[in-house]
Amino acid sequence: MNRVPLVKKVLSENARIAAELRERFLEHDILCLNILGSPGAGKTSLLERTLQGFAPGDRVAVLTGDIQTDNDAARLARFGFPVRQITTGGTCHLEAKMIERALEVWPLADLDVLFIENVGNLVCPAGYDLGETSKVVVLSAAEGDDKPLKYPSMFFKSSLMVLNKIDLLPHVAFDVAAARTNAHRVHPGMDVVELSCTTGEGFDRWRDWLHKQRELRDAEMIAGIA
Amino acid sequence: MNRVPLVKKVLSENARIAAELRERFLEHDILCLNILGSPGAGKTSLLERTLQGFAPGDRVAVLTGDIQTDNDAARLARFGFPVRQITTGGTCHLEAKMIERALEVWPLADLDVLFIENVGNLVCPAGYDLGETSKVVVLSAAEGDDKPLKYPSMFFKSSLMVLNKIDLLPHVAFDVAAARTNAHRVHPGMDVVELSCTTGEGFDRWRDWLHKQRELRDAEMIAGIA
Repeated sequence: MNRVPLVKKVLSENARIAAELRERFLEHDILCLNILGSPGAGKTSLLERTLQGFAPGDRVAVLTGDIQTDNDAARLARFGFPVRQITTGGTCHLEAKMIERALEVWPLADLDVLFIENVGNLVCPAGYDLGETSKVVVLSAAEGDDKPLKYPSMFFKSSLMVLNKIDLLPHVAFDVAAARTNAHRVHPGMDVVELSCTTGEGFDRWRDWLHKQRELRDAEMIAGIA
Repeated sequence: MNRVPLVKKVLSENARIAAELRERFLEHDILCLNILGSPGAGKTSLLERTLQGFAPGDRVAVLTGDIQTDNDAARLARFGFPVRQITTGGTCHLEAKMIERALEVWPLADLDVLFIENVGNLVCPAGYDLGETSKVVVLSAAEGDDKPLKYPSMFFKSSLMVLNKIDLLPHVAFDVAAARTNAHRVHPGMDVVELSCTTGEGFDRWRDWLHKQRELRDAEMIAGIA
């Protein structure tokens, strides 16, 4: 089948742009997180509550991707930080060139943290490096504890699994221990944070994780300069 | 960009095989439903409860697609009807040739209803015709009422939206009327059935819809012969 060479070409072009982005993020000491998950897993809700926790002067921004609508950008812009919507118009994932283009209007020197909210899709976005520091996969307790085994690539490539909607645990057949075990079967040692974006329970653990990533990022930059 | 001709070629090959499948399904008076939705929307649960409602001698079968694992086939095989797992090994959707291959072992003359459970993905499967009589999209109340607007292609192409997990409505910020309005904005006149695969509430409406589709299918076959 002659599909492979072309897919390879698209992916190698993506890898080249992603490598350039990664270099630029490192140069400016920017922590860039690529937030992934199914439609409705709670990616936008996670970012809403996260932005709420930043102080007005904090240097944080969001790129948010969707097939259609700029609903998410509207939701996220309320917190006063720079937000841009990337509408893919049908494409099932974000690509590095979309990030490169969206960042043209923002001086990277003004940023410390960049969140990229990917298209809601537990499959395709895993294949496209965006130059991020880390991938974070959001799994909702309403989705089922078997998802890491069924969509292994996404969980293998993510540094953290955010187990969201724990407020629904009394109402759904979701086994948290099984979800952790399944995540660790495809990705041993993966970080896991349980939280609810609705009640805020567990949110301090997510903030601690973010804080640790920023410290690691700083250490990485210092190591790069040294 | 030279991606388009290749995608066109893959899609035209898919369309050719899908047309052949559609012809065969019509010839054998088979109602074939392509069940779509996000990971965790409840596609397998819908089929579990649906199979439970069939009588032992009913001529019904299921093909179930996943990236990895045959968990769903194991869940569905308990009801005694023929079930086959299609493991795509990374591909984010089912394609007509996978259906063609999976059906090689089943005489179509033995079937009245064929359910195809697609890969959990609200984007890519919409682009691949499987020769089905109709597409059915399952949206869970945990996912958010904005999803039809964000993933319009899936809702535009589906004949029915099953609004699942209505038992969770007291616990989530989901506006049923908004979900209906959003579905009808992208697909005016689309059928909508609200139900819970957990409690069984509303399941009679889904069975009625199924029954109506089988009557329409029979009428279509008779019209084709006449």
